[in-house]
Amino acid sequence: MTDAVSGKPARLHRHRLDVAYDGTAYAGWQIQPGRPTVQEALEQALARLQGARPKVHGSGRTDQGVHARAQVAHVDLCRIWTPLSLRRALNGLLPADIRIIKTRRAAATFHARHSVVAKEYRYLIWNDEVLPPHLRLTHTHIRRPLSLEAMVAVALALSGRHDFTAFSANPSRPVPDPVRTLSLRVTRKGCAITIRAVCEGFLYKMVRSLAGFLIAAGEGRYGPEDARRFLVSRQRTAHVETAPPHGLFLWRVRY
Amino acid sequence: MTDAVSGKPARLHRHRLDVAYDGTAYAGWQIQPGRPTVQEALEQALARLQGARPKVHGSGRTDQGVHARAQVAHVDLCRIWTPLSLRRALNGLLPADIRIIKTRRAAATFHARHSVVAKEYRYLIWNDEVLPPHLRLTHTHIRRPLSLEAMVAVALALSGRHDFTAFSANPSRPVPDPVRTLSLRVTRKGCAITIRAVCEGFLYKMVRSLAGFLIAAGEGRYGPEDARRFLVSRQRTAHVETAPPHGLFLWRVRY
Repeated sequence: MTDAVSGKPARLHRHRLDVAYDGTAYAGWQIQPGRPTVQEALEQALARLQGARPKVHGSGRTDQGVHARAQVAHVDLCRIWTPLSLRRALNGLLPADIRIIKTRRAAATFHARHSVVAKEYRYLIWNDEVLPPHLRLTHTHIRRPLSLEAMVAVALALSGRHDFTAFSANPSRPVPDPVRTLSLRVTRKGCAITIRAVCEGFLYKMVRSLAGFLIAAGEGRYGPEDARRFLVSRQRTAHVETAPPHGLFLWRVRY
Repeated sequence: MTDAVSGKPARLHRHRLDVAYDGTAYAGWQIQPGRPTVQEALEQALARLQGARPKVHGSGRTDQGVHARAQVAHVDLCRIWTPLSLRRALNGLLPADIRIIKTRRAAATFHARHSVVAKEYRYLIWNDEVLPPHLRLTHTHIRRPLSLEAMVAVALALSGRHDFTAFSANPSRPVPDPVRTLSLRVTRKGCAITIRAVCEGFLYKMVRSLAGFLIAAGEGRYGPEDARRFLVSRQRTAHVETAPPHGLFLWRVRY
């Protein structure tokens, strides 16, 4: 962007956006030609706000159908906005399934992806014969009773510093260093089972692969020994299934 | 329905259905030509199940966009179903936004509407600047801070035995006896405000009228004296607004 008067590049001001979304209607975070995405919706709203369309940088992609409680993005804008006015202006332009929770000025050195210290995802399961209608877009429905004890034992085996290649999908480009430090917890409250995964950076489809494996563990199909064996193999096999996207929430990004 | 062999009326067996639904996509409970309704969906599923289409009787109508945690209905079926098999068969045929929570055999004297002892409705409000995307279909969004104290005081004034004409919409047929005994409670947990209304039988749009008035009370526009004055007037006026339908749940029906 250039300044209209001087013709010189306009001075830009970095802002941080904390964004919640219901991913049901979106082909994920990242812009894809001809498909509705969250990044696209944000850039369109910002373009209407200031004329020029800026690029929005997210903390990372989320897949089609995945939700966010608090995705974080940064964007360089033509002027300085107060947190309240930017949030109100954007929420007035965005569809109701995307909400700006918070905005603030950010240092020019802040980068939504590069500055990440850790991320937390949560995977929600409804473990009962009948799925209440209002949970159908946010919970994965597992009818057969899952053993919380078995899931907790496997979560413990997967926690810590490991090469997680066996629990990620084959990405287009292999990751140079697939070793990560993971904290994985499973809790149950009535029929609702929550998987909490915290990591400095997740591999491609890693949380859904972990969730798929934990569900299989809860069904008694695998135990902690299998988890350790698969980790060491560093091979993704059919033993690890990818759980459906609509149970997954990007919960928190730490900087 | 007649028996195929004898030509005599087939013996029918009454069943009770406890039904949850997300009302977003429906023009309410009751069948209306050319519009999707919950009763229509249930009768269609039952018709596929047994050939003949039976009439489903609900505990009462719910308006367009209103949800149910546990609506109750009865239906007379050609054969006796076990609770598990009927629930599974129906849930296999119904869309995911309508779920049979429970079924059971019912006595021929049981009538989903006539046998009602009391009903409970809940009205959900999200009272904060930003409405989280996943609550947008089930919570009414009120940005301005509501005074819980003011709402509780007005709820207390409205509770008890009164003529509730001032808090109902003008029905096509006037109700012969608009005197009802109401229990109205308001609680707050963080940004979520819940209105609980229990009554032996609600007048037309009564809960949404009560909710609209309680919201106005929370905004400081009316107090307990106004509530008492409007009750005594027995006139519906512009002072009482009807709150939007999507915050309303039919929560429980007692028999």
